[in-house]
Amino acid sequence: MTNRRDFLQCAAAGLLGAATVSRAGAAGLPEAATRSSADMQPPQHPQSGRPYQPVATLNGWTLPWRMKNGWKEFHLVAEPVVREIAPGMKARLWGYNGQSPGPTIECVEGDKVRIFVTNKLPEHTTVHWHGILLPNGMDGVGGLNQPQIKPGKTFVYEFEMTKSGTFMYHPHADEMTQMAMGMMGFLVVHPKNPDFMRVDRDYVFLINAYDIDPGSYTPKINTMTDFNLWTWNSRAFPGIDSLVARTNERVRIRIGNLTMTNHPIHLHGVNFEVTCTDGGWVPRSARWPEVTTDVAVGQMRAIEFVANRPGDWAFHCHKSHHTMNAMGHDVPTMIGVDHRGIVDKIQKLVPDYMVMGDRGMADMGEMEMPLPDNTLPMMTGMGQFGPIEMGGMFTTFKVRDKLQPGDYKDPGPYQYPKGTVAYEWTGELAEPTRASTAKADDKTVTVIKPSGHGGH
Amino acid sequence: MTNRRDFLQCAAAGLLGAATVSRAGAAGLPEAATRSSADMQPPQHPQSGRPYQPVATLNGWTLPWRMKNGWKEFHLVAEPVVREIAPGMKARLWGYNGQSPGPTIECVEGDKVRIFVTNKLPEHTTVHWHGILLPNGMDGVGGLNQPQIKPGKTFVYEFEMTKSGTFMYHPHADEMTQMAMGMMGFLVVHPKNPDFMRVDRDYVFLINAYDIDPGSYTPKINTMTDFNLWTWNSRAFPGIDSLVARTNERVRIRIGNLTMTNHPIHLHGVNFEVTCTDGGWVPRSARWPEVTTDVAVGQMRAIEFVANRPGDWAFHCHKSHHTMNAMGHDVPTMIGVDHRGIVDKIQKLVPDYMVMGDRGMADMGEMEMPLPDNTLPMMTGMGQFGPIEMGGMFTTFKVRDKLQPGDYKDPGPYQYPKGTVAYEWTGELAEPTRASTAKADDKTVTVIKPSGHGGH
Amino acid sequence: MTNRRDFLQCAAAGLLGAATVSRAGAAGLPEAATRSSADMQPPQHPQSGRPYQPVATLNGWTLPWRMKNGWKEFHLVAEPVVREIAPGMKARLWGYNGQSPGPTIECVEGDKVRIFVTNKLPEHTTVHWHGILLPNGMDGVGGLNQPQIKPGKTFVYEFEMTKSGTFMYHPHADEMTQMAMGMMGFLVVHPKNPDFMRVDRDYVFLINAYDIDPGSYTPKINTMTDFNLWTWNSRAFPGIDSLVARTNERVRIRIGNLTMTNHPIHLHGVNFEVTCTDGGWVPRSARWPEVTTDVAVGQMRAIEFVANRPGDWAFHCHKSHHTMNAMGHDVPTMIGVDHRGIVDKIQKLVPDYMVMGDRGMADMGEMEMPLPDNTLPMMTGMGQFGPIEMGGMFTTFKVRDKLQPGDYKDPGPYQYPKGTVAYEWTGELAEPTRASTAKADDKTVTVIKPSGHGGH
Repeated sequence: MTNRRDFLQCAAAGLLGAATVSRAGAAGLPEAATRSSADMQPPQHPQSGRPYQPVATLNGWTLPWRMKNGWKEFHLVAEPVVREIAPGMKARLWGYNGQSPGPTIECVEGDKVRIFVTNKLPEHTTVHWHGILLPNGMDGVGGLNQPQIKPGKTFVYEFEMTKSGTFMYHPHADEMTQMAMGMMGFLVVHPKNPDFMRVDRDYVFLINAYDIDPGSYTPKINTMTDFNLWTWNSRAFPGIDSLVARTNERVRIRIGNLTMTNHPIHLHGVNFEVTCTDGGWVPRSARWPEVTTDVAVGQMRAIEFVANRPGDWAFHCHKSHHTMNAMGHDVPTMIGVDHRGIVDKIQKLVPDYMVMGDRGMADMGEMEMPLPDNTLPMMTGMGQFGPIEMGGMFTTFKVRDKLQPGDYKDPGPYQYPKGTVAYEWTGELAEPTRASTAKADDKTVTVIKPSGHGGH
Repeated sequence: MTNRRDFLQCAAAGLLGAATVSRAGAAGLPEAATRSSADMQPPQHPQSGRPYQPVATLNGWTLPWRMKNGWKEFHLVAEPVVREIAPGMKARLWGYNGQSPGPTIECVEGDKVRIFVTNKLPEHTTVHWHGILLPNGMDGVGGLNQPQIKPGKTFVYEFEMTKSGTFMYHPHADEMTQMAMGMMGFLVVHPKNPDFMRVDRDYVFLINAYDIDPGSYTPKINTMTDFNLWTWNSRAFPGIDSLVARTNERVRIRIGNLTMTNHPIHLHGVNFEVTCTDGGWVPRSARWPEVTTDVAVGQMRAIEFVANRPGDWAFHCHKSHHTMNAMGHDVPTMIGVDHRGIVDKIQKLVPDYMVMGDRGMADMGEMEMPLPDNTLPMMTGMGQFGPIEMGGMFTTFKVRDKLQPGDYKDPGPYQYPKGTVAYEWTGELAEPTRASTAKADDKTVTVIKPSGHGGH
Repeated sequence: MTNRRDFLQCAAAGLLGAATVSRAGAAGLPEAATRSSADMQPPQHPQSGRPYQPVATLNGWTLPWRMKNGWKEFHLVAEPVVREIAPGMKARLWGYNGQSPGPTIECVEGDKVRIFVTNKLPEHTTVHWHGILLPNGMDGVGGLNQPQIKPGKTFVYEFEMTKSGTFMYHPHADEMTQMAMGMMGFLVVHPKNPDFMRVDRDYVFLINAYDIDPGSYTPKINTMTDFNLWTWNSRAFPGIDSLVARTNERVRIRIGNLTMTNHPIHLHGVNFEVTCTDGGWVPRSARWPEVTTDVAVGQMRAIEFVANRPGDWAFHCHKSHHTMNAMGHDVPTMIGVDHRGIVDKIQKLVPDYMVMGDRGMADMGEMEMPLPDNTLPMMTGMGQFGPIEMGGMFTTFKVRDKLQPGDYKDPGPYQYPKGTVAYEWTGELAEPTRASTAKADDKTVTVIKPSGHGGH
């Protein structure tokens, strides 16, 4: 269905050109590509090494490499970075190659990889390759498996990618601090056979969380549960990219969690299955039909489905506070308390006084409140029908009938066919036959044979 | 095993009569049935439309409908309600049709449904049909998929139920507030073939949580983790219905979670399997034997089992604080501190002074402490053998050899056969042969063939 | 692969000798063996009753029994205990037979067991046999299924073990208090056929958590989420035993969770499958490949794998705060704040003043800070390459090519083959062919047949 030639043409103009390779001396370190933008780089088809179907990193990018004597060489630089969490707010984090999370590493089953890690942090670090089966001395647990990488030093990791799957990398040194500061990145090992588990679009992102006081820039690193910024790839709504697909494309979304709690990731409009974990591909017999997958800390989950219904579908963590931004957790409940008389009186003294939430909090999605500098509103975002009233771990999954295979740009709001939107009742029905867009094949997502009593 | 005619006879006297349909004008809105009691309505067999095996909603009820030109029409009214959390405590919540949660919607695979939603709240709202595959404009995400429903307005949702399963409805507008206030309801789509996945009893409830200060009535809506009322269908022990079944009946319990944390739901006395999620029916090859299923936020889980052991079985969330009511989280540990001398002295000055917990907290299950108005004791409930010392998400599952199929009333405490209860040892054994009630078929719940080393 | 005769010889010198049985009078209570050490007792082969492959309890032991008229008789004593959490810190807990957790109970499918429970606590208690299918009066829910066991009394539980599997025991009386104080123990029912699901090494432990203020000894029992000691079998790193295995042995690790939150247990170096829950053995068709299993509260999970890569592998909860000890959660972030000038000035006044964390927290793994008495450092542990910087739920899984079947002793640090450890880059590569230790069979852990588009 996907035209692979289109992908290749699209990628030819990409970041991953020959220049990257030639600029680094053959005997020296590979160039450490860097990127400061939070835009999503479209999938990059490989210019060297084994072929594969590349992934798209939400608000991120893929790290270039060079081939050298049969080894695929990457260069990660651990360093302080500035990350825009969403328009209007930046955070001082730690990351790799200019960003938090670091760039996605993509390679292929059977690849021999050599990864140079340079430490530009003020303290020591290491890199652990989460889920990769490798020699013990390459596993990256500081003190246990290797010496810590001191500031200013570069270390070399070398191992073979023996199996395909969905992985991540992160420090295993002063781990609580370094992960709370944003140090992590995605790692995809593609199957040697590019037709194995092939999909049309393959998105990846990591779930993270920060505790940054309103108006400040640096996360508090000792927070255990009360984070106030719930992010995907260190971005919060409305700063998270929309995911796009053409109607009836098969889509995979790979998710890893490096926070301190479970995140139940919920996608509207489809039933999906988890097809891959950081332990491998899930056998078909073992898969469950789901609309919400609970991604535990230190777990990766790849969900797959056919995007068979066009529209703008909500995609979010189902914990309602995780689709809110900072502020709001100490606001007392005013529901049911009528302040109108009191407010009038106070406003004579304090002209801009207002009462928040005596009829719920929905006003906050609409009104502009004075906020501290560098602070996101608690709930925000404007849709074609009004305020969306979200924040944090929320974005949209946009399915369109017409979309080129290599096109990952946000197509704008969905144009609803006439008579397919919930409508105000004013005494008569709009269209009695409007249910016709339901798809006949929904009922067969999971086939269980009818059986007698007690037999299932 | 279940006599279906019995169900139908039982339902004939139910709420769902012809009167409900005829009272509403054919051209106008369907009547919005309302209910203020927290009693469990017995399962209601359908009086119109396709036949199905109805469910029993824990401390709740099923919403009546009318058929009109081939459409099944329901009417939900979003409004402030008063819910009794347990005898002795009421809460001011938001719900639907007089209750929180709202009534259960039951329909059948293939049904075309039209749901009128009237907003009587002080702020706008929408309804999202969680898990239902439907046209994008009916998905209910305010701002994104439809305009918000302003106070006083009625909106129309129309779609076809294309697959059977276990779903729920809740707002997708000012979501944190409206769910923290109790707005949610169960939605069951029965299979077109009533023999598919048929069970003898089918219970449903939603897990929710509130943060209501002792002595007050309205939940604090910004609480992220420290809730103090852990409820099932907005009820806490001892206010939660007992579930009942006849020995050897096949039972399904469907559970949805709309709190901010996972709830590991534990049932004593049986092994069960999860057979359905909000994504569909779980294939038999993929099911796990369990005694505790961890229901994540925004997930539905249907567990099934044969109730093959008579008795009063505990059924609860396994997080120990979730089987406690409000109070108690700030009490210092007195264990190991002997206060007796000090207490004597203080009591001369303050006659009703008492020290709590120097020998554990069990005294609290027995003694009556002065509590603020409208506050439940932390642990409570009296069983036939003494205090049960529970609260929150706890109830009993009662299995009896003699029980009519349509009977859902609490049968009272279990009458234990002589010699089957743990007993005090006073120097000799009571009955050396008492283990005979164990069932032979336990060992074959999951059959795994023995195999050589490494072969499993 | 494992030589069973070796196991038996090893066990002959064990605790479970004939003396234990004979010392207790035939007509009286069985002797209640007690143990105060936190050392791991090696697996104990049964001296009476049906044969089985015994388990190893992390920092724990197995309770001896006596056979009497075809019944296997155990004696548990609920009582206050002192548990060393790690060298340098002791806690005053409640447990069984001298320890928290209590001793592991091992028996065999088909066994008729009689368990005497003596209550030496200052308040009443009961014992619930989590996951066991038994008569309702033996289920141990105080008040509901039996009278509470008053202090000083002994109760008798009698039932048949009808199925093999992975279980636990804990009170169901003043449950929040008694579990927060450490009352729990493991319970394994071995299959009647010792070849069924046989493994070479079988480890068991329970996950628990405490809230003990630095410098004090007794847990705060009302803590709901903010625990500060995250433990396995009431031990914290570096106090947790290492697990050991010989290369290519099949290993099972059984884990139960009795805290207030999920614990994502992560093992480096292998892919594993969950093969058993407290509900039974998981069918092969239903298993997922994993590197992290999320153990929910009130759940048991047995993971299995072949230990095919020698080395010292990290084994830990993946929530980063759960691999930290007490202290640290209120420390403000100093990252990016340069204190050097200020510190100089302050140190003139306060000579031992120091600033923590302006360059991260890694210094804390190295420096010795003054700590309150009876308090563990936040992160600690020294490996062969430097500080490991961990605490709490962390230990190592040590795989060695040469290890006797009955040998469970820590073999010391792994001796890395030359050229297999990540190394500092100083301008040239160490060994271009070092990736050779990767195992060819990694890629076939889960076999999914390649298939065409949309067909998987």
